[in-house]
Amino acid sequence: MGEFELIERHFVRATPRAALGPGDDCALLAPAPGQQLAVTSDMLLEGRHFLATVPPVRLGHKALAVNLSDLAACGARPLAFTLALSLPRADEGFAAALARGLFALADAHDVELVGGDTTAGALSLCITAIGEVPAGGALLRSGARAGDQLWVSGHLGDARLALEVFRGHAALPAADFEAVRLAMECPQPRVALGLALRGLASSAIDVSDGLLGDLGHILRRSRVGARLELSALPCSAALAAQPQALRQECLLRGGDDYELLFTAPPHREAAVRAAGVAGGVAVTPIGVITAEPGLLAVDHDGRVQALPARGFDHFA
Amino acid sequence: MGEFELIERHFVRATPRAALGPGDDCALLAPAPGQQLAVTSDMLLEGRHFLATVPPVRLGHKALAVNLSDLAACGARPLAFTLALSLPRADEGFAAALARGLFALADAHDVELVGGDTTAGALSLCITAIGEVPAGGALLRSGARAGDQLWVSGHLGDARLALEVFRGHAALPAADFEAVRLAMECPQPRVALGLALRGLASSAIDVSDGLLGDLGHILRRSRVGARLELSALPCSAALAAQPQALRQECLLRGGDDYELLFTAPPHREAAVRAAGVAGGVAVTPIGVITAEPGLLAVDHDGRVQALPARGFDHFA
Repeated sequence: MGEFELIERHFVRATPRAALGPGDDCALLAPAPGQQLAVTSDMLLEGRHFLATVPPVRLGHKALAVNLSDLAACGARPLAFTLALSLPRADEGFAAALARGLFALADAHDVELVGGDTTAGALSLCITAIGEVPAGGALLRSGARAGDQLWVSGHLGDARLALEVFRGHAALPAADFEAVRLAMECPQPRVALGLALRGLASSAIDVSDGLLGDLGHILRRSRVGARLELSALPCSAALAAQPQALRQECLLRGGDDYELLFTAPPHREAAVRAAGVAGGVAVTPIGVITAEPGLLAVDHDGRVQALPARGFDHFA
Repeated sequence: MGEFELIERHFVRATPRAALGPGDDCALLAPAPGQQLAVTSDMLLEGRHFLATVPPVRLGHKALAVNLSDLAACGARPLAFTLALSLPRADEGFAAALARGLFALADAHDVELVGGDTTAGALSLCITAIGEVPAGGALLRSGARAGDQLWVSGHLGDARLALEVFRGHAALPAADFEAVRLAMECPQPRVALGLALRGLASSAIDVSDGLLGDLGHILRRSRVGARLELSALPCSAALAAQPQALRQECLLRGGDDYELLFTAPPHREAAVRAAGVAGGVAVTPIGVITAEPGLLAVDHDGRVQALPARGFDHFA
């Protein structure tokens, strides 16, 4: 099977929301009046962003999920995406499973694959996702203010715990392993939460490089500091059962969480909790924004320590 | 130097056209009212789309050029692009040269780098370019009509000739080699021509997979055929000096030309020639669209042969 046939069979579908879907030099989108376009690109490489052991259906899901997560962090409604795919060979079963995972998530968020590129090469996926947000209404990293509450959705650290099991640094009961592996391989982008936080959150980011690193982006962009309550960090039962050092590493520097980290004024707490309900995910207050720069962490015994707000660096 | 510093230093610049440039979860674009957005993605992999010998400044140019060429083929005005870059290591000299080539072309077309992704890995570049085109005004592959003239911009085949020299299958004088190597490594996207062809060309495509393959896309989408005058195909002096079999292969199946192939009614010939002048590139009539499906080629002696309208396939 050739390139064009492989694309045609597995990746070309009707795109009723787009003015023109795949098959020409470009796709055409017709954004609604008054909307700005939110644009984000993420590339996933085998061995770097995913293991060779990942089932292709989950890989298709994740490649789109990490991009939708960026749209969610801006409060944008997903509209369309492109996929540039390099595959070692035209493996029909692999392509079919990849497409199944991709389109299941796309359908769940009513977002269309409008174009892209396919080539032979080491396995990699590069997706660019485009969403709409009312002009001036995007959630940015730069809006946190002293006194704001700091919130995070879902749990943190499970994806990193799964990686540590794959690396042989941790062991888990089979059911727990499946759960944390699902967190790593099938993250759920918090699109509905991002939409519900429009006009409510003062800043937002998605946690992809680890809590400390991504919180650091908010603090630098907003020119503020934060005090983090370590005992408040939301944690699965599987991770809670791990030794304290590993647990803290996963929670603070885990990465690949794809939860939303955001701030909101304290008097909006009830509205934030309602946004969590609307978004179908738990939201947990984990600290407070301070006027003084820097990041302080309060541990379980009430001791305060300074933490470096740095995340994962691909070249460090 | 880490990932964030490398990006900050070489790839982050002011983006006055965008509502929000790099540095947040998404970039924000504010398209003008009445415009549709043209979106295209192309991925370039080392060893597949470029040789390890390519100077990084040319690689930066080419990665953007092939995407702007898709916008040109739709008659879209470039607006913004994202870059997902994987690099074997944080090599500052390489990144600086890559950025120089990328931004020189971006500046020439007033298009802004608004976001993207950087990771460690085998060298690859994935660019998504976004342009604007008046609603309903995009040039598509599907509009060719029987009787239309078939046109191509610039020369064909030089990029393929350069590749054959690198492969050791052809030899050229040094000056000719530099010229065809420039065609391969620094293609010029025909953006101004694409804009000038709005409302004039009945169909258009950019020649990336070879003339026959890309013409085939127009014929299939427009449900027409074509008669091609082989003696009319525009050819550099360097390629004209090659043996006939190699010359014809480069012209018909070369690929990587990034010229515009388009159709227009014959009574618009003067306007098409004026569009070539406005676009700063020669335009040459090379055949005619026919109602009968299929592709016929008229050779230098007036003999007619049927040709398969197939292009390069990454998995064939």
